[in-house]
Amino acid sequence: MGSQLGEQTIGFTKPPIIVGYGNVVGPKEGEGLLKQYFDQILEDSLWGEETWEKAESKILKTAIQLAIDNAKITKQDIRYLFAGDLLNQLTASTFAIRDMNRAFFGLYGACSTMGESLILASMAVEAGYANYALAATSSHFCGAEKQFRFPLELGNQRPLTATWTVTGSGAVVLGQTGTGPRVTHVTPGKIIDLGIKDEMNMGAAMAPAAADTIITHFKDTGRTATDYDLIATGDLGSVGKVLIQDLVQKEGYDLSRNYTDCGVEIFDHKKQDTHAGGSGCGCSAVTLTGYILKEMAKGTFNRILFVPTGALLSPISNFQGETIPGIAHAVAIENGQGLGKKG
Amino acid sequence: MGSQLGEQTIGFTKPPIIVGYGNVVGPKEGEGLLKQYFDQILEDSLWGEETWEKAESKILKTAIQLAIDNAKITKQDIRYLFAGDLLNQLTASTFAIRDMNRAFFGLYGACSTMGESLILASMAVEAGYANYALAATSSHFCGAEKQFRFPLELGNQRPLTATWTVTGSGAVVLGQTGTGPRVTHVTPGKIIDLGIKDEMNMGAAMAPAAADTIITHFKDTGRTATDYDLIATGDLGSVGKVLIQDLVQKEGYDLSRNYTDCGVEIFDHKKQDTHAGGSGCGCSAVTLTGYILKEMAKGTFNRILFVPTGALLSPISNFQGETIPGIAHAVAIENGQGLGKKG
Repeated sequence: MGSQLGEQTIGFTKPPIIVGYGNVVGPKEGEGLLKQYFDQILEDSLWGEETWEKAESKILKTAIQLAIDNAKITKQDIRYLFAGDLLNQLTASTFAIRDMNRAFFGLYGACSTMGESLILASMAVEAGYANYALAATSSHFCGAEKQFRFPLELGNQRPLTATWTVTGSGAVVLGQTGTGPRVTHVTPGKIIDLGIKDEMNMGAAMAPAAADTIITHFKDTGRTATDYDLIATGDLGSVGKVLIQDLVQKEGYDLSRNYTDCGVEIFDHKKQDTHAGGSGCGCSAVTLTGYILKEMAKGTFNRILFVPTGALLSPISNFQGETIPGIAHAVAIENGQGLGKKG
Repeated sequence: MGSQLGEQTIGFTKPPIIVGYGNVVGPKEGEGLLKQYFDQILEDSLWGEETWEKAESKILKTAIQLAIDNAKITKQDIRYLFAGDLLNQLTASTFAIRDMNRAFFGLYGACSTMGESLILASMAVEAGYANYALAATSSHFCGAEKQFRFPLELGNQRPLTATWTVTGSGAVVLGQTGTGPRVTHVTPGKIIDLGIKDEMNMGAAMAPAAADTIITHFKDTGRTATDYDLIATGDLGSVGKVLIQDLVQKEGYDLSRNYTDCGVEIFDHKKQDTHAGGSGCGCSAVTLTGYILKEMAKGTFNRILFVPTGALLSPISNFQGETIPGIAHAVAIENGQGLGKKG
């Protein structure tokens, strides 16, 4: 059984195995820098549905099925589902999962939710509470803009610090047995709020939380950045990516060699006009289940630290003058063969 | 270590102990049928804050502190916090927990969230991932009406099937060691949707999910209603309370003797004009941490099944013509001395 390491980390003694994964992305993501890694690319964001919300549910449902198929198991083998999204009351997840007839834990960690779902699914599997558990998240650009910012029809200009919500979903099946990379350590994050109020600069709001979680992970495990082939935050974007490196540097850790951000990787920012980068629950989920796990399968990376990042604001909290708290959860995934080709 | 029982249940081998609990309620709840059981009753629903949302955060923060004090531990002893509420993006929880400096898992299961948080906190403690974990939820009548129904200022009439969102919060500390009742079994629920569309009759939408979870709990554990002194659903209200008994009866189980609903218990419905009963995440949380656990401490009940119920709709899903999916999670709590005085 796993053991408590330091302040927040769990080190798994019987690491849960990532036995399957899948993803679906929208058309813009399918034209981005990671297009070769996605399982299914949609031709349009509505995907035959009447509303963006229903399209997001269909995207999440399909990603879950792809992950189950990839794991070569059946839906009935999954004991517990851990999922969440950005829509109010998690309706993308709820309506995606409604017909699955499986026990469900709804999660909300803003864009950090893929980390939260992976941690809880890993805990359930290692502890023996489930032979298989599934972790998934989704987001949709149009639904997120409508809910959090402005209706698309207004054609509002976006500041260069703003990120672009990814349309897509990623799902991961964790098992006690099987083949695949293993989740060896998890570091659930604390809420950190350094007083940022600009909801168009969420990278700056989330960077301190990501830095805190990564530093805590290093202290709890005795590891440093050189122990990983890749450290990937979720959606800090180009602004937050610079900030976090400074914050971590102050504690004596160097992220200059092998650190990136899923939001920076996913789009071709100059060509695609996505400003500071991709964001949303779907951003880290499709980058993990696309680029990262597929390059791990090739041995390019053998040991990675995945750190999805969330901004815990609401439109109401913002209107009421509140600052933007951030959170980030870290998940260490290893092939078990030492560092990889890029290590 | 706990074992998988049947389709959905976990039976704990080292049952986590409820070492502390606390609650805070609003003025209306403090005039209700359970008033003698609450730790702190507010004189007004704003509690000196500028907004209902900020008042709800303060209520949740205070309930958490009361639970920690009651457990005779410190905030630093809590390794993981599991919490959620009804506000969009869980801002009641986020802003309550922001300064606590503890790792946080944000949960959303509508009014079932107290069950979800108790299950996940129990799993973390039994598996050894945390010596202490905390489970909490909150709701606020004014904030919920504004977000889900109509602004209070409109003075809309409410149908008799509608419930009244409880203003309050309950928190529970679970520990590996200590004294108190123990969480022996948990049955996380599936999403059940039988096609109810009336958001003013959520008891009817949730009753099938509660029935499904209770029946599954009985089948998985080999228990029946007679094995419990009390079975309490979360907030089905007077309408759902009748429906669930019929649904469970069809599977051969009898809830007529020892079943109630927290939403039916909390208010004096005729005097307080609360129609079908209390509801909200806070309803089941304050009834558990008030009435149920305090009567367990007296030995009135020695073995109870707590089944918070959630309606997974959103105002958007409702406008888009969707039906209302329900979910319910069951948590068995025992003093370990056989059935109680009412058993």
